[in-house]
Amino acid sequence: MSETDLDALLARPPAPTRRATVPALDARLYAPVPLLDHGFVRVIDYMGDDAAIVQAARVSYGAGTKAMRDDRGLIRYLMRHRHTTPFEMCEIKLHVKLPIFVARQWIRHRMASVNEHSARYSILDREFYLPAAADLAEQSTTNRQGRDRALAEAEAEAVRDALRADAMRCYATYERLLNDRGDGTPADPGLPQLARELARMDLTLNYYTQWYWKIDLHNLLHFLSLRMDPHAQREIRVYGEAIGGLVADWVPAAWEAFRDYRLEAAHFSREELRALRAVVQGTPLADALASVDLSARERRELEAKLGL
Amino acid sequence: MSETDLDALLARPPAPTRRATVPALDARLYAPVPLLDHGFVRVIDYMGDDAAIVQAARVSYGAGTKAMRDDRGLIRYLMRHRHTTPFEMCEIKLHVKLPIFVARQWIRHRMASVNEHSARYSILDREFYLPAAADLAEQSTTNRQGRDRALAEAEAEAVRDALRADAMRCYATYERLLNDRGDGTPADPGLPQLARELARMDLTLNYYTQWYWKIDLHNLLHFLSLRMDPHAQREIRVYGEAIGGLVADWVPAAWEAFRDYRLEAAHFSREELRALRAVVQGTPLADALASVDLSARERRELEAKLGL
Amino acid sequence: MSETDLDALLARPPAPTRRATVPALDARLYAPVPLLDHGFVRVIDYMGDDAAIVQAARVSYGAGTKAMRDDRGLIRYLMRHRHTTPFEMCEIKLHVKLPIFVARQWIRHRMASVNEHSARYSILDREFYLPAAADLAEQSTTNRQGRDRALAEAEAEAVRDALRADAMRCYATYERLLNDRGDGTPADPGLPQLARELARMDLTLNYYTQWYWKIDLHNLLHFLSLRMDPHAQREIRVYGEAIGGLVADWVPAAWEAFRDYRLEAAHFSREELRALRAVVQGTPLADALASVDLSARERRELEAKLGL
Amino acid sequence: MSETDLDALLARPPAPTRRATVPALDARLYAPVPLLDHGFVRVIDYMGDDAAIVQAARVSYGAGTKAMRDDRGLIRYLMRHRHTTPFEMCEIKLHVKLPIFVARQWIRHRMASVNEHSARYSILDREFYLPAAADLAEQSTTNRQGRDRALAEAEAEAVRDALRADAMRCYATYERLLNDRGDGTPADPGLPQLARELARMDLTLNYYTQWYWKIDLHNLLHFLSLRMDPHAQREIRVYGEAIGGLVADWVPAAWEAFRDYRLEAAHFSREELRALRAVVQGTPLADALASVDLSARERRELEAKLGL
Repeated sequence: MSETDLDALLARPPAPTRRATVPALDARLYAPVPLLDHGFVRVIDYMGDDAAIVQAARVSYGAGTKAMRDDRGLIRYLMRHRHTTPFEMCEIKLHVKLPIFVARQWIRHRMASVNEHSARYSILDREFYLPAAADLAEQSTTNRQGRDRALAEAEAEAVRDALRADAMRCYATYERLLNDRGDGTPADPGLPQLARELARMDLTLNYYTQWYWKIDLHNLLHFLSLRMDPHAQREIRVYGEAIGGLVADWVPAAWEAFRDYRLEAAHFSREELRALRAVVQGTPLADALASVDLSARERRELEAKLGL
Repeated sequence: MSETDLDALLARPPAPTRRATVPALDARLYAPVPLLDHGFVRVIDYMGDDAAIVQAARVSYGAGTKAMRDDRGLIRYLMRHRHTTPFEMCEIKLHVKLPIFVARQWIRHRMASVNEHSARYSILDREFYLPAAADLAEQSTTNRQGRDRALAEAEAEAVRDALRADAMRCYATYERLLNDRGDGTPADPGLPQLARELARMDLTLNYYTQWYWKIDLHNLLHFLSLRMDPHAQREIRVYGEAIGGLVADWVPAAWEAFRDYRLEAAHFSREELRALRAVVQGTPLADALASVDLSARERRELEAKLGL
Repeated sequence: MSETDLDALLARPPAPTRRATVPALDARLYAPVPLLDHGFVRVIDYMGDDAAIVQAARVSYGAGTKAMRDDRGLIRYLMRHRHTTPFEMCEIKLHVKLPIFVARQWIRHRMASVNEHSARYSILDREFYLPAAADLAEQSTTNRQGRDRALAEAEAEAVRDALRADAMRCYATYERLLNDRGDGTPADPGLPQLARELARMDLTLNYYTQWYWKIDLHNLLHFLSLRMDPHAQREIRVYGEAIGGLVADWVPAAWEAFRDYRLEAAHFSREELRALRAVVQGTPLADALASVDLSARERRELEAKLGL
Repeated sequence: MSETDLDALLARPPAPTRRATVPALDARLYAPVPLLDHGFVRVIDYMGDDAAIVQAARVSYGAGTKAMRDDRGLIRYLMRHRHTTPFEMCEIKLHVKLPIFVARQWIRHRMASVNEHSARYSILDREFYLPAAADLAEQSTTNRQGRDRALAEAEAEAVRDALRADAMRCYATYERLLNDRGDGTPADPGLPQLARELARMDLTLNYYTQWYWKIDLHNLLHFLSLRMDPHAQREIRVYGEAIGGLVADWVPAAWEAFRDYRLEAAHFSREELRALRAVVQGTPLADALASVDLSARERRELEAKLGL
């Protein structure tokens, strides 16, 4: 989408509709939330609101929902008891610009619709993700998928220099292979114009791509529960957090329930439950833990959940 | 959804939005299109328009779409070449009331979100589908799944009497088993109130149910290509046709392309193609058909496609 | 599937394969597990075993899994941390015979493949579900979707008589409308043969249908977590429990992990966690509960989870 | 998966099973089909055979299938009339090694299960795709997504040199940033070990990744119809063709039907049909084409379909 198109959308005058409308999200339509060094996420369209969740639930459960006259209470009940289908009744469409290695994690969520910018058809811009010095960290030794302490400043700058040099050099090759002045004519008429679908393979994984991504609220909350998790890679987590902010404006009651019952909640196994039950009956914690069958790793996980 | 809720929706005053809006569909929001004897379909919400399809395609194919400056032309190109993902960018939510045996066919389309009225929680109304006399037809002898000639009037009335009597009698049993005056109190205090989840099993398959059904345009068109087909059972086809009318108001360019390239188009096998190629080269049709490997059934199908 | 076909499958002689094979499940292939009065579930085919889950996880997480040399430990880790994709690598295909009202709940699980017996093409048998007297219960007053105390014997027999009479009478109508001796010729040549797709609407929802149902292990476990739940209707729960027994034979390590971390586990909200953390720090339970923000209903749910 | 694991699988002794077994595919289990310079595809497991498709169709259509006693004829009927669900009853699991830019196209097929090797956990090998000289071609000027004439030999070698140099240089950076001798200990103790999830972003898109990919036959055939198409990028088409060869051994009747009714078949729009109908009625082709509403582009497409 060109800058001109974006300006046109941002300037779109309001039109009347009888559909469910959320002024707080409508006000944020089309405006990019900047992320990382060149990325962003912005809302292109949405359908439904908190009331749409309630409406669908009342169709399903009818008389069963009468006891809960209050919409917020009903939404909290649905979230708590994993009645997930009413949350599918809301839909959102985002425009996202993100590094390719982040896109590769993101696309694993299959229950969404995607239209990605294709480098078979178009020439990618010279935009790549270069982590800020503070975000460059050592490999964790305890968590095989994670990071540990941040690098020292000089180390970080050396890493940034190396990443930048490789990305720039690869882009220079990419341009030379394409041999296209941007209008289809060759920059050097004596050289061939390599097919775009081939030239692109020379770019590094931190180059930016972009897509339209459309998903329903239930599947979006599942995405967020994984991607806002502290174990998610920081470069995708910042997208998760930005999207979370949009959801909070869109469906505030659902968002509050999601935080209370999913994001900040915890799951306890059968053995963990046995220990908890003993504790609430008065057994000292150490004795309770000794009486159940937990591996050393599970015991650490339990202690973390209990804030010990 | 109660009648009061429905009235409230129909009276919903317009609110301003900067989202893509389709006045022709907005005008039809919430208003039921009556179908069969007690059924209906109505639009509760929608997202996107023809331009949203184009917008998504231009993000994907970028420079590749420049040659087609015309939106209609691009949509036709996408439909013709089965570039289906841009059509996923539009979404519609319908409220449908339909007989249970129709709902059983409908639900086989998995790529949709559904909230159905539950007879575990609520008591179903005494509303069942009784086919009009003109719609009662004999079992086809050539097509194992279809109908043949309509019944004579007296025969049809006898069938209607039989269906009505069974449906009424079963509902009377259902009511007696529930033993509920509608407010939870027993009609006959001396009798038990059977669990709703059990009592419902006594109803016949022509009783009406209802649901919210949300689906994207790509999957909706696939649904319509199957359910508007002459081989579809008439009782679901009328829903397909009514929804087709809504789609025509919603995304007119996509609908036109769908009719031209899907609904009124045809598929030819390798052998059928061989015959066609011979014909356009000047071979008489009979000779062309004799030279290819088609079963008798396939030959009849080919002749039908060619209007012979 | 005719009885003859079934016998042929049961008698199928073993053939050699180099695929992953589970002797305990192979021994149970094709043999129906009887359920309710006329239903069953039986395994038609399966793919993968516990080792296939481990194999897929090791491809994904590579070095990250080396610390867990033990397959059982790795499977438990995957289940505990909701690494669900390796469980998708196992697949099972079941043949199920079940009442239509149960099939209507079941089909809501969209992530499965289904081929259902169609009453548009075939004539259904006179087989309907008649609950045993002990399974007939009153509507619950506290749980809108559930049952309460069982009916007295005389009451239960009256219900069974009513259900039986309606089902028999509807079937008699169905047969009369079809007017088919089973070979396509009319029982009464003076009467029409109503189209099967129409006649079927007169049957009650407790008639049996059957289908082939194929699903991966991840989605099957999700199905079981909902359908083995005490809140599930008894008539579908018995299918869930029977399938659970098959899974236990098929992938015993995954099944054990599923029971420990899902089926017998519990989820605690942010506020519940706050109360628990206070308790393990020594705060008396009553004080801890008083200090957090729980509705009366949530408080009862928490007490139930803690076995109070 | 290590070489040792692969050898173990290849040497797996046959075990007896009563499941449907396909000796021709069983014989090919685990053996990689080499593709491109370092890629491969191999079958890890499968479920079902041609007879399983028939079996599922007969459950669905019952009496409707009696006329077709012949399994091959029934499978051809199902394929021709897009009765797709019986094809979902077969499942295959592949192990694939492929360049990342190919994986990015492939993953767009959502109806499959995937476990991909993760570079957050593991260190990627120094293996990248370097196109053979004969496969390097110019950007097509008529088809925005395609290739045109092959490069001259010297030009192609220059491209290969450029791609090789960038891939090697990036890998050298990657290794230096990881600073890991392969056992977790630093190659240079004076330097940090950058987190793997960060270092990977420096690799180019032609590096190889690998995954387990599991899909049902219906969705696989859809994948193949797109990826074996001449418009598909050559680097994914070779995978499509290799998988096609496996499917031909697995379900020969379904494969034959797929080729006849899908792969080598063609679709004609309403206007194209009008022209064809005129031609078979005796109208000269030129007149028939002049009488219908086709764009210049559509007319060229029609002529191509008719082999003109």
